[in-house]
Amino acid sequence: MHEAAAILLSLFVIFVAAQIGAEIAQRLKLPGVVGEIVAGCIIGPSALGWIKPELIASGTPLDVLAEIGVVLLLFSVGLETRLDDLKKVGRSAFLVGVLGVVVPFALGTMWAHWNGFEWTKSLFVAAAFVATSAGITARVLQELGALQRIESRVILGAAVIDDILAMLLLGIVTSLQVGGGVHVGSLMLVLAQAVGFVLVIGWVGTHVMRKKGEWLDRPINPLSALTIALAICLGLAFLSTEFGLAAIIGAFLAGMIASERPRREELEHQMQPLLAFLTPFFFVVTGAKIDLSVFASGAALWMLLVVTVIAVISKLAGGFLGALSLGRRGALIVGVGMVPRGEVGVVIASLGLAGGVFSNETYAVIVAMSLLTSIVTPPVLAALLRREAEAYVETPPHI
Amino acid sequence: MHEAAAILLSLFVIFVAAQIGAEIAQRLKLPGVVGEIVAGCIIGPSALGWIKPELIASGTPLDVLAEIGVVLLLFSVGLETRLDDLKKVGRSAFLVGVLGVVVPFALGTMWAHWNGFEWTKSLFVAAAFVATSAGITARVLQELGALQRIESRVILGAAVIDDILAMLLLGIVTSLQVGGGVHVGSLMLVLAQAVGFVLVIGWVGTHVMRKKGEWLDRPINPLSALTIALAICLGLAFLSTEFGLAAIIGAFLAGMIASERPRREELEHQMQPLLAFLTPFFFVVTGAKIDLSVFASGAALWMLLVVTVIAVISKLAGGFLGALSLGRRGALIVGVGMVPRGEVGVVIASLGLAGGVFSNETYAVIVAMSLLTSIVTPPVLAALLRREAEAYVETPPHI
Repeated sequence: MHEAAAILLSLFVIFVAAQIGAEIAQRLKLPGVVGEIVAGCIIGPSALGWIKPELIASGTPLDVLAEIGVVLLLFSVGLETRLDDLKKVGRSAFLVGVLGVVVPFALGTMWAHWNGFEWTKSLFVAAAFVATSAGITARVLQELGALQRIESRVILGAAVIDDILAMLLLGIVTSLQVGGGVHVGSLMLVLAQAVGFVLVIGWVGTHVMRKKGEWLDRPINPLSALTIALAICLGLAFLSTEFGLAAIIGAFLAGMIASERPRREELEHQMQPLLAFLTPFFFVVTGAKIDLSVFASGAALWMLLVVTVIAVISKLAGGFLGALSLGRRGALIVGVGMVPRGEVGVVIASLGLAGGVFSNETYAVIVAMSLLTSIVTPPVLAALLRREAEAYVETPPHI
Repeated sequence: MHEAAAILLSLFVIFVAAQIGAEIAQRLKLPGVVGEIVAGCIIGPSALGWIKPELIASGTPLDVLAEIGVVLLLFSVGLETRLDDLKKVGRSAFLVGVLGVVVPFALGTMWAHWNGFEWTKSLFVAAAFVATSAGITARVLQELGALQRIESRVILGAAVIDDILAMLLLGIVTSLQVGGGVHVGSLMLVLAQAVGFVLVIGWVGTHVMRKKGEWLDRPINPLSALTIALAICLGLAFLSTEFGLAAIIGAFLAGMIASERPRREELEHQMQPLLAFLTPFFFVVTGAKIDLSVFASGAALWMLLVVTVIAVISKLAGGFLGALSLGRRGALIVGVGMVPRGEVGVVIASLGLAGGVFSNETYAVIVAMSLLTSIVTPPVLAALLRREAEAYVETPPHI
């Protein structure tokens, strides 16, 4: 009974902190998500300590609730993204995804080796520089109503490719750690499975939904379309983890499939209260996981600064180069949109710590970098997109 | 990572089972909630075993999700219940609440003593006969669109009183177990606190909301009214556990307060997707906790039958007698509505097992009884209310 009360209290504290943080951020013309992450930072273990670390550890109720929040978020982002729209940007998204992995991985490896890591460990450190967190960028794009823009589609498509490559890379560097050589054959199989999963589910799901979409409304439950779509979302989120991908990739695919339903707007509308209740848990918990005490040492602070700058510049450069076909400004938006590492960098860093590859300090720096990129990106992205919108107003289209 | 995948899989399995169960139940003209509980029973540890017992133990992510589901359900029930409406039925609700506790407690004590328990232990066993689970009845009433009926208000008001008395009773029987005498003074303090909490929060909250309800729409977030109301819901759910009451009592009060807002229908509408996603977890997990193996032994089965009959009849009688002012049919509906013990009986039984008062068999029987009353009641209640509605159609009101 007492444990249940403690969880209810933390749900309350997190939810209220998220509302206050988002409100303050929006009054400062920042995206609400920045306020939610910062709120998490403030109430988290390393500042006010209102949220105990054991309450947000992996697999705890709050952690699972946060995971459900980001899964639903990516589902709703998928709802606003149709397969045909993604196909149109396939080439750019592929280039952005590949370059957005190659450039940070190369720069990350060099930095780590220069800092005294041996080569195989350097590759592991670099892997934490790679994965883009679609969740944070997606939320900013959604808040700004920019999900229909071509840059947004490139970013989301690239995030899927990015996740596949990061997963592959993690497989490579992990087998290098354990001393065994890299089994090219088995890695190719892993890659083929992941790519196959995304392509088959995306293609088959979309076509089945186009033909049989009215089945969603057959059950007696008046909200059956929503509940069936959510069931598909949970199912694909699970399946994608079985294929070595992040759960949010499956959720995104489920949303994309559901977007082929005739009355898509109804689903989008019904998702709003679900997102309003559940996504704050993801962003506040993400913020609460930041260990602010790392900033106490000057050396670590310097290391954090360098790592963050490398992480930002390398991803920005990769994304920018890959998206040059959209023009310089479009490419810049895409590059910035790819910067957040969010929880994926944190997961890789945790694996590195558990495997003895990272010291505690390296771990803290990698985690802080991952989250710093997530806090820094949203306002920049919002400013870029807003200026773009103003430019558009100032120079009306040809009549 | 693997743990996260296991939880995603069980979320998927539970959610799909709930949808299928509800659909089958509704096609059989039963309330959907019956299908969800039975689905939980089937996929639970004691039948198919698709849900492992350690995944639904107290404090696990699924258990917390279930708790959030029932908290939101009672919040939405509160949204459809205004303080002024409750006041009108205050007298009947009070009588139903008191008699609905006294009669089952008296009969339960006698049965337990007759079965060889000493008097103090008998009182503990009887306490598990007492508490009404508002969640299950509320869901049935909501499904049938019957929340505006006078019987529904009596049931909900009585459930609050019931919970206060059950909590008091638990305090008494627990102090009797530990050998100390009953401290009338401290018990009175506990009672006064609980009653005071409900009255003060209900009264003050309602009046503040009436005067300052437009504050809910002040933040920039377009869904701010919903998120603030949900924050109040989580806060009062926590607070009510601090006053020794069930979390759902606080959630119900929060809903009742929010119902004073001018645009209440908007909130009710926005709650629909949240309920569709989260309440199935509560009902499926409730069903999954039923240990079917108890039915293997003839003696236990007989004990279960006797206990269930006593539990049903005593509660029915208490509720019926208390609500006689509504007429016989109304009193019958109220009596039936009070029958489900649901999770409250389970909680008391768990305390009894942990404290060494119950044997494993007694525990299993009490839990099975609590859940059996929850499965049996909804169809009966639905049938009574439907017949009532038909009678109403046949004899149109005076013109």
